[in-house]
Amino acid sequence: MSILDRVDSPADLRRLTRDELRTLAAEMRARLIDVCSRTGGHIGAGLGVVELSIALHYVFETPRDQLVWDVGHQGYPHKLLTGRNARMETLRQEGGLSGFLKRSESPYDTFGAGHAATSISAALGIAAGRDIQGDDYKVVAIIGDGSLTSGLAYEALNNAGHSDRDVVVILNDNEMSIAPNVGAMSRYLTQVQRNPLYNRVRDKIGEFVETHDALNTLVRKWEESVKSFLTPGVLFEELGFRYFGPLDGHDLDVLIDTLEVVRDRGGPRLVHVVTQKGRGFPAGEHVEKWHALPPGHDPATGKQRTAASGNPNYTAVFGAGLSALMDERGDVVAITAAMPSGTGTGGVATAHPSRFFDVGIAEGHAVTFAAGMATRGLRPVVAIYSTFLQRAYDNLIHDVALQSLPVVFCMDRAGLVGEDGETHMGLYDIAYMLAVPNMTVTAPKDGTEMLALVRAGVEHEGGPFCLRYPRDVAPDLVPPMRDIAPTPHATWEVLRTGHDDIAILAVGTMVAPALAAAATLGEEGLDVTVVNCRYLKPHDDVTLAAILGGHKSLLVVEEGTVVNGFGAYLARIVEQQEPGVRVVAHGVPDRIIVSASRRRQLSLCGLDSAGIADRVRALRETEAIAG
Amino acid sequence: MSILDRVDSPADLRRLTRDELRTLAAEMRARLIDVCSRTGGHIGAGLGVVELSIALHYVFETPRDQLVWDVGHQGYPHKLLTGRNARMETLRQEGGLSGFLKRSESPYDTFGAGHAATSISAALGIAAGRDIQGDDYKVVAIIGDGSLTSGLAYEALNNAGHSDRDVVVILNDNEMSIAPNVGAMSRYLTQVQRNPLYNRVRDKIGEFVETHDALNTLVRKWEESVKSFLTPGVLFEELGFRYFGPLDGHDLDVLIDTLEVVRDRGGPRLVHVVTQKGRGFPAGEHVEKWHALPPGHDPATGKQRTAASGNPNYTAVFGAGLSALMDERGDVVAITAAMPSGTGTGGVATAHPSRFFDVGIAEGHAVTFAAGMATRGLRPVVAIYSTFLQRAYDNLIHDVALQSLPVVFCMDRAGLVGEDGETHMGLYDIAYMLAVPNMTVTAPKDGTEMLALVRAGVEHEGGPFCLRYPRDVAPDLVPPMRDIAPTPHATWEVLRTGHDDIAILAVGTMVAPALAAAATLGEEGLDVTVVNCRYLKPHDDVTLAAILGGHKSLLVVEEGTVVNGFGAYLARIVEQQEPGVRVVAHGVPDRIIVSASRRRQLSLCGLDSAGIADRVRALRETEAIAG
Repeated sequence: MSILDRVDSPADLRRLTRDELRTLAAEMRARLIDVCSRTGGHIGAGLGVVELSIALHYVFETPRDQLVWDVGHQGYPHKLLTGRNARMETLRQEGGLSGFLKRSESPYDTFGAGHAATSISAALGIAAGRDIQGDDYKVVAIIGDGSLTSGLAYEALNNAGHSDRDVVVILNDNEMSIAPNVGAMSRYLTQVQRNPLYNRVRDKIGEFVETHDALNTLVRKWEESVKSFLTPGVLFEELGFRYFGPLDGHDLDVLIDTLEVVRDRGGPRLVHVVTQKGRGFPAGEHVEKWHALPPGHDPATGKQRTAASGNPNYTAVFGAGLSALMDERGDVVAITAAMPSGTGTGGVATAHPSRFFDVGIAEGHAVTFAAGMATRGLRPVVAIYSTFLQRAYDNLIHDVALQSLPVVFCMDRAGLVGEDGETHMGLYDIAYMLAVPNMTVTAPKDGTEMLALVRAGVEHEGGPFCLRYPRDVAPDLVPPMRDIAPTPHATWEVLRTGHDDIAILAVGTMVAPALAAAATLGEEGLDVTVVNCRYLKPHDDVTLAAILGGHKSLLVVEEGTVVNGFGAYLARIVEQQEPGVRVVAHGVPDRIIVSASRRRQLSLCGLDSAGIADRVRALRETEAIAG
Repeated sequence: MSILDRVDSPADLRRLTRDELRTLAAEMRARLIDVCSRTGGHIGAGLGVVELSIALHYVFETPRDQLVWDVGHQGYPHKLLTGRNARMETLRQEGGLSGFLKRSESPYDTFGAGHAATSISAALGIAAGRDIQGDDYKVVAIIGDGSLTSGLAYEALNNAGHSDRDVVVILNDNEMSIAPNVGAMSRYLTQVQRNPLYNRVRDKIGEFVETHDALNTLVRKWEESVKSFLTPGVLFEELGFRYFGPLDGHDLDVLIDTLEVVRDRGGPRLVHVVTQKGRGFPAGEHVEKWHALPPGHDPATGKQRTAASGNPNYTAVFGAGLSALMDERGDVVAITAAMPSGTGTGGVATAHPSRFFDVGIAEGHAVTFAAGMATRGLRPVVAIYSTFLQRAYDNLIHDVALQSLPVVFCMDRAGLVGEDGETHMGLYDIAYMLAVPNMTVTAPKDGTEMLALVRAGVEHEGGPFCLRYPRDVAPDLVPPMRDIAPTPHATWEVLRTGHDDIAILAVGTMVAPALAAAATLGEEGLDVTVVNCRYLKPHDDVTLAAILGGHKSLLVVEEGTVVNGFGAYLARIVEQQEPGVRVVAHGVPDRIIVSASRRRQLSLCGLDSAGIADRVRALRETEAIAG
C-alpha cells in the first residue's frame, strides 16, 4: 500500500516523517500524471505545487485553518490530500469531482474559484470574519505570480497590508500565468528571484551601517527604513506585508520550516515560493501547452493518442482570420489578457508583434487600453473569453460604449463550456451586452460567418461591436479571410421558409440544430421557417416584418441564459410591432450548470435538434388548444 | 480685462510670464468658487489642480500632446483654460458643459471619464497608437492618489512599466479620494511625502557609498540597485517607472521646470505632485463635504442658502437604518468602496467600527472580500452605487452567486442620476442582476420599504440579494428600523384594483407616479390596477396569476434601461402562463441620457405620472383598434 493510499486526510499526513513526505510527493506526482492522461485537466499548475500542498497541510491545521487556493488550477494535489484520491478518475466529468475547488465538494475547499486573483480578497474577508467572531485560526491565500497582474489581487494586497490582520499570502511563483507572464511585476519577481546576491549585499550593507563609526546619527535614525528598502520583497513590504523568501518550492524541509515560522507570527505576511510548473511531467518542457490537457493523451510525449480529426475549432479559425485581416489593414490591433494561445492569437503575436498586445490577466485594463487606441483611429480587436469579459463590464460601458468607440469584442467560449463547469460558463454575455447602448451584438452560425462578422466589426463605423462563438469545432470549411466579405449590417438570413405559422429564430450555434430540427419536423408534416439571427442588436427589421406577416409563433433559440437574452429582447420589439405574435424564448435555464461534456450540457438544456423539435411540437400543441 | 479673459486657448497661456501665470491661478480659483456656488459641482478636486493645470498646458503642446485626466472631477480648471470659460455657468446643466470631461465637448478632452482610475490605461493605449502610427506627441495621464487604490490603475501601471513606452503619469496626491484614503498605498505615499529627510539620507548614503574605501567591490557592483532602493518612489521604480518628486503642486515654478525636464525624457515616468484639495475655498476645511457641492450654497460657509426641507434622502435613511440593524444583529457587516459619506454609511463607521470596512476605490475587492466574510456565517451588506457596481460584475457572479453566498447588495443612485450625466447613470443594474442565477432582485417604493428589504436581505437564506434605490429624497417619513418588519419574500403589493383590463406593474421609484397616473386616468373614466412589484426576481406568482386572470394588458414601468429590464423579464413569464396577455415595457430608452435635473430626465423618458398616463392611454387605443 502506498503512502498516498494511507492518507485519508491531512491529519494522516501530519504523522509522516520527512522522508515519507518526500516519497508521498513522488507518489502524488505519478498519480496526477496518470489520472490526467485519462481525464484531461489543468495538470501543469498542480505538478508545480505538490510539495507546497503537502507543506501547507502539514503545517496548518486544516480544515480549521483556512487555505484559499487561487484559480483552483493548482488544486489537484490538495484534492489528493483531502480525501478525494479515490475519486480523482471522475475529475471534470459529469457527477464527478470539479476541475476547480468547490465549497460544496469538501470542507477543505474554503472558497471556490475558477477565475484568477480572487484568493487574497476572500482570505482577507475570512480573516475579518474570524476577528469579528473572536476566533483564532489561520488564513492562507495561495496565489500564482500570473494572478498578480490582476488589479483584484493588488486591491486586496493594498487593503490587507493596511489592515494589519493575521493573514498569510503564499506567492506561488512559476514565472507563468498560462502563457509566460508579462508586466513589470513579473520582471520584478524574476529579478528578485534570480539574484541570490541580493541577500548577501543586504547583509553586508546592514553590517556596514551597524558598525561604521563615521555613520552619523541621521543615518542611524533611518537605519530601519534603509534596511526595509534593501529587502528583495521591498514592493510587498511597501504594501504593508512582511516578506519571506524566495524559497525553493520543491524543498520540503525549507517549506515546512519556513511556514512554521511564518504561521506563528501575526500581521500580513507574504511567502515567496519559487516552483516549476509542470514539474515531473515527462514532456514538460512545453509549459504553456501543458497548462491543461485534453483527455486521452500520451504522458510520455504529451501528444494526443488519437489524431485530432476534422475541422479546426472556432478559436483557431478566429486567430488565423484575424492575422490575415491584420495583413490587409494596418489599423487593426489585437489585444489579449494573458491568453494568446487560449484565444488563438498566438499567430498574430508572431506575425504582427508591434500590433499585438498581451496585457496579462487584466481584462479591465485590456478594454480601456483598447479604448485609448480607438481614440487615435485604430481598430482594436479584443479577444477575451465570455466569462472573463465579465471583469471588464464597466470598462466596456464607461470607456467604450458611452464614447461610442470602435472596439471589437470577440467573445470566445460563449455558451456552454463543458468540463470546466460553472465558473467558466459563457452564459451571460448576450444579456449583459444587449443592455449596453451603442453596442452592436452579433453571433455567427459557423466559422466563415465568424470571420465575416470580424470583418464587419472592424469596418463598422457606429461604435463598439461584439461577436460570440463557442468552445467547439467549426462546422464548416472556412475559406481564407481575403475571400470573406463582411456580413451586411443588421441582417438576418432566412435559411428555410416553411408553410406553417411557426418560425425558429436561431442565434449562432443554434442555427445548425434548428435546421436539423426543422428537417425532422418536416418529415412529420410540420413545415417551419428557420432564420439565422446573426445580428441580435440592431436586428433586421425588414426580415422581421416579413416573418411577422406570415407567422403566429416565433421560437427564439440561443445558447445563453434564457433570462433576458435575445428572446426577451425580441419579445419587446415584436410586442410593439405585432402584439398578436407569440415570442417564446428557449435558452439555458436560469440555474447553475455544472461540469459535463458540452454535447451533454446542450442536450440537458434542450439545445440540440431533438430539444428544439420538442419545443416546437409543444408550441404547436398550445396553439392548437388556443386556436 | 482679467488675464483669464484673455486666455482663449492654451496657446495664449504659453505667452504669459511666470508672474502673470500666478495671477491667472488666483483668477481661476476665484472664478471656480463663484461658478460652483451657483451651479454646484465637484469643486474640491479642481481647486487643488489650478497650478497643475496651468503648468501642464504651459509645458505640453495641447491639444497635440494628449492630457488624459482621471475621473474628470479635476477637469474644471482645464475647462477654463481650453476655451470654455464663458460657458462655465452652464456646468452640469441641460445642454450645458458636462461636469466631467467629454470627447464630444472639446478636442482638449482626449478621453471621457466619470469613474476613477481609467486614465493610465487610456493614456497607454493612446501612446501605443502613436507608436504604431509613427507619431511623436506626448501623452500624460493625471491621476489622483485615491484612484491608485483601484486595481485598474495598478494593471495599467504594471503594463506601462513593462512597455518602456513614452508615457507620463502625474500622480496628483492630495491624500484624499473622496473620503480620506485607505490602504497601504495611501500610507506609503504619505510616508514618502512627509519625510523630507529621505532625500537627505539618500544623498548622504550615496556620497558615502561612492567615497568610502572600505566598500568592497561587491557593494560597488550593486550601487545602482542600492540607489534605486533609496528613492522615495521605489514602489513605482520597481514597477518600471522613473520617479520624480514629491513636488509642491502649488508652486508653478517647480511644476513648470520639472515638467519640462520630464517632458523631454522617454520611457514611463511618474511625477508625484502634492496638492491640497479644495485649496482656496473659504470653508475648505471640511474637505470630504466639499468634494462636490449642490447648487446654491454660500461660498463663505459652504452652507446651503436655503435650508434643506422635508424628508431625508434615501442614502441617509439607508445609512441610519443599517446602523440600527447592526445594533440588533452582531453578524451584519458593512462594506463601502471609498464612499462612506456617499453611501450614507459614515454613521455605521462611527457606531460599529469593527464591523465597517472601507476598502478604498476597489469595488471588485469589496465584493469578493464580502464573499469571504459570508463563508464564515456573517451577513455582509455591500453599499455601492449602481454605476460603480458594474466594476464588480464578475465578482458578484463568480464569487457570490455561483456559491450562493448571502451577500446583500445595496445599489444607491440606481436609475437616472441628474446632473452627473451619462457616466454615473444607474440604468443597467436591473438587466445585469436579473441575468445572474441565485440572485434575488428587489426595489423599494419608498424609504420604509427600502429598510424592510434591507432587513429581508439580511435574513434571506437563499443566496445573494440586491436592492436598488434612487438619488432622491424618500417620499415618506420612515419609522425607526426596529419597527420595520422584513418584506415577505417574493411578494408584490396591489395598491389599487381597477375595473378596467389594464394593470400598471411599477418598480421602485415608479410606484408613486404610477398611482398618480392611475388617479388621473380614473378621473377620465379609465380605472387601472396598480401593483408595486417590489420583488423582481423571484416574482410574486400568486399575485401575478390573479392579475393575469383579470387583465388583458400589463404596463411594466421601471427606471432602468427598457432593454432587457423587468418588463422583458416578466414578458417571458407571462408568455408561458397566459400568452394572450400583452406585456408592454416602459423604461429608459436605449440611448445615452445626458445631464439635466433628475426630474427633467424622468419627464423626458416618460417616467413621470404624465408620461405613464400617456402610455396607458396609447395602450388602450391599440386595444380598442385590435378589439
